[in-house]
Amino acid sequence: MTHGAHPHVVPRHPRLDPLADRYAARTHGMKTSEIRALFSVVSRPEVVSLAGGMPAVTALPLDAVGSMIGDLVSGMGAQTLQYGSGQGDPRLRERICDVMALEGITDASPSEVVVTVGSQQGLDLVTRVFCDPGDVILAEGPSYVGALGVFQAAQARVRHVAMDDDGLIPEALEEALLDCRANGDRVKFLYTVPNFHNPAGVTLSEPRREAIVALAEKYDLLIIEDNPYGLLGFDREPMRALRARNNRRVIYLGSFSKTFSPGLRVGWVLAPLAVREKLVLATEAQVLCPPSLTQYAVARYLDTQPWREQIKLFAELYRERRDATLESLAALMPPGTVWTQPDGGFYVWLKLPHGLDAKLMQPRAVNAHVAYVPGIGFFADGNGREYMRLSYCYPEPDQIREGVRRLARVIEAELDLHSTFDAVDTGSFRAIGRPDALDSGTTIVGPANSDTYEDRR
Amino acid sequence: MTHGAHPHVVPRHPRLDPLADRYAARTHGMKTSEIRALFSVVSRPEVVSLAGGMPAVTALPLDAVGSMIGDLVSGMGAQTLQYGSGQGDPRLRERICDVMALEGITDASPSEVVVTVGSQQGLDLVTRVFCDPGDVILAEGPSYVGALGVFQAAQARVRHVAMDDDGLIPEALEEALLDCRANGDRVKFLYTVPNFHNPAGVTLSEPRREAIVALAEKYDLLIIEDNPYGLLGFDREPMRALRARNNRRVIYLGSFSKTFSPGLRVGWVLAPLAVREKLVLATEAQVLCPPSLTQYAVARYLDTQPWREQIKLFAELYRERRDATLESLAALMPPGTVWTQPDGGFYVWLKLPHGLDAKLMQPRAVNAHVAYVPGIGFFADGNGREYMRLSYCYPEPDQIREGVRRLARVIEAELDLHSTFDAVDTGSFRAIGRPDALDSGTTIVGPANSDTYEDRR
Repeated sequence: MTHGAHPHVVPRHPRLDPLADRYAARTHGMKTSEIRALFSVVSRPEVVSLAGGMPAVTALPLDAVGSMIGDLVSGMGAQTLQYGSGQGDPRLRERICDVMALEGITDASPSEVVVTVGSQQGLDLVTRVFCDPGDVILAEGPSYVGALGVFQAAQARVRHVAMDDDGLIPEALEEALLDCRANGDRVKFLYTVPNFHNPAGVTLSEPRREAIVALAEKYDLLIIEDNPYGLLGFDREPMRALRARNNRRVIYLGSFSKTFSPGLRVGWVLAPLAVREKLVLATEAQVLCPPSLTQYAVARYLDTQPWREQIKLFAELYRERRDATLESLAALMPPGTVWTQPDGGFYVWLKLPHGLDAKLMQPRAVNAHVAYVPGIGFFADGNGREYMRLSYCYPEPDQIREGVRRLARVIEAELDLHSTFDAVDTGSFRAIGRPDALDSGTTIVGPANSDTYEDRR
Repeated sequence: MTHGAHPHVVPRHPRLDPLADRYAARTHGMKTSEIRALFSVVSRPEVVSLAGGMPAVTALPLDAVGSMIGDLVSGMGAQTLQYGSGQGDPRLRERICDVMALEGITDASPSEVVVTVGSQQGLDLVTRVFCDPGDVILAEGPSYVGALGVFQAAQARVRHVAMDDDGLIPEALEEALLDCRANGDRVKFLYTVPNFHNPAGVTLSEPRREAIVALAEKYDLLIIEDNPYGLLGFDREPMRALRARNNRRVIYLGSFSKTFSPGLRVGWVLAPLAVREKLVLATEAQVLCPPSLTQYAVARYLDTQPWREQIKLFAELYRERRDATLESLAALMPPGTVWTQPDGGFYVWLKLPHGLDAKLMQPRAVNAHVAYVPGIGFFADGNGREYMRLSYCYPEPDQIREGVRRLARVIEAELDLHSTFDAVDTGSFRAIGRPDALDSGTTIVGPANSDTYEDRR
């Protein structure tokens, strides 16, 4: 994050902005995400970062991938270095359909796929195509911080819908839909991450998938299914996507960032043909076309490398790190601390003992050389202060254990501080990571306590 | 542009769109650009395409570039395949400052640079940060078609400003500013392509650069300087950028698409620090970060390859193609046809004899196996029917000559048809490509005849 070695003079007071009265309305609401704000901190080597969501790309066969990409440029420079189509490379779109088939989407046509600069761009395109300022988007509480940034830039209003350990709660969704209807709100879509949710770490259960698709039919609801982690399950085959259950009401977002490489920025949208047409026009106005080189690299990777085995290898690696995280949490966290039990993906969602504030605690954690993302970044409505997201995807298991140890000490110190000044009730939460609760399988809390998760727009 | 070999059934009537009432207001105005609509036609091998703006990437040392990129991935996979910062790689931003110094921008700091997915994304970001629906953007008439797409998506109104062979006319700019002030229009910025204009092929003269920067001061005007072609001049050193003359009122857009490779999609924005902050937030909401691999590829290319010599080689190649174009036009075009004389870049702007319509003529041109882009695509206001853009960047000189020959025959046939039915006055325009006019250096027409170029919002 250095600004380089140039000795040029730059304005010292960027806040004194002569253009301040000229920005668009959407610009005034833009703010740095909780994650981005941490970047300079977590890159310090002495800090164990449980903050970032960086995949373990060094587990890739880098030599093979390097020579594969080098050969692509040497042998197909006229294509890989040239402009491509706005919709994306046809060959890659075919292979994307093969990938989606692993999650039960067997009726997708390459003509319905738009390749994007990561699925982030896919979400931005969908939002631009559908949302006017003031429109309402339903989203889980908590929700992916990058999605909230997109919705804010579109000047849409986010209404959070409660979730629990089985993911989004259908009854809460129906209540939100009825509320919005009563208010005259235009609900443009439900945004959901059904598998290994970011940041909550939970997965939408099979019966709830059916229930939510049924609600979409009943209420004429469009669903944006964001699924970057679906193939990274630890214990079972991938679940059937929402899109596999309904091809008219579900727009599906996919990504190679977690199954191959985020630095290539290759994602996609699968949408009904009429929507796909709009998305192509929108992406042409935004980037003309996605990079050709990175698209060819992914297509060639899928054609020539053992990508299914590589995904299994990634999942095995993340499972070890998940285990290190959950075991350390269970062993070290003080009573009153609770967390979710992910069986795939990158994240654990942790709730602090009552009265603690993850955002206020953050400077002390960084002083103790451990970093996390405070929960408030994952809510559009200011909720989430008691929560934090822990990422286990990037650090080695030993680092994770050390990081959790440091974090536990910080929390304990906070609790001591609090109990000195006021009697904090630390007993009202069940510590799900503790051995006595681990096997009970009931009433795991985390991201769905009604008072924290209800919509407080 | 094939949709792949999958036998899946796709809806046959995408116009029957069940979501038709759900799109955002901006989506209803989106339409396929004149250029994109031609893509399937111009890729047919029997067609000489003078339509696309594809650089001659095969003139690159593909083996060297391929092994350079392969080595990057093998040796630096942990960086090149990983997420990067939203603002872009610091090393690349330093090198971008070196590139801009070639056009007199010597005070740029890497901290003021944002790397983008092509300069198209840069323009989209700037527009999103500044423009609310209904805001006015001033732009040359004609203007870059991709910019018009961005402005349309932002629901901004474009007011064209007349240009001639010396580029944008300062008096016309001042008139437009006064008009807008009188109307109460909020002018957010002037968008201009000062060098080797796309599509007009003309370059803003030195005195006009000074005049336009002075007008920006006088009228508190922000200028977006879009400069993808500035280093591709045929006859002289690059001209001093507008940004080199004023670092507070000019936001500069640059690109490696024409000097290296468009398939990497690496461009940039240079903006005052306060604006740069907004742009970074906007790009994070749009794509998270630009692709790492392509950024490292460009930085390494600038570090290790003779890129200045490569640009000279490109310019020499394009100069030959420009010569083939202008010589063929002068030899073959019927009287009444006029065109501009680019001394750099990719494009010639041609005006048909009075009464002919480039859009209506297009099917007959395609039948005759030659393609161009009709002029109306370069106007937001429906003007430009008599014009077309001819690109000489991609075809070999012999193909260019054949393409111009076919085009001349099509125009002659149109004229015959017209003169059969009504007496068309084909003598009222000076054919600037004809030998008697070539050396006169006076009153070159093209994109600035008052009746076509005045603002007709």
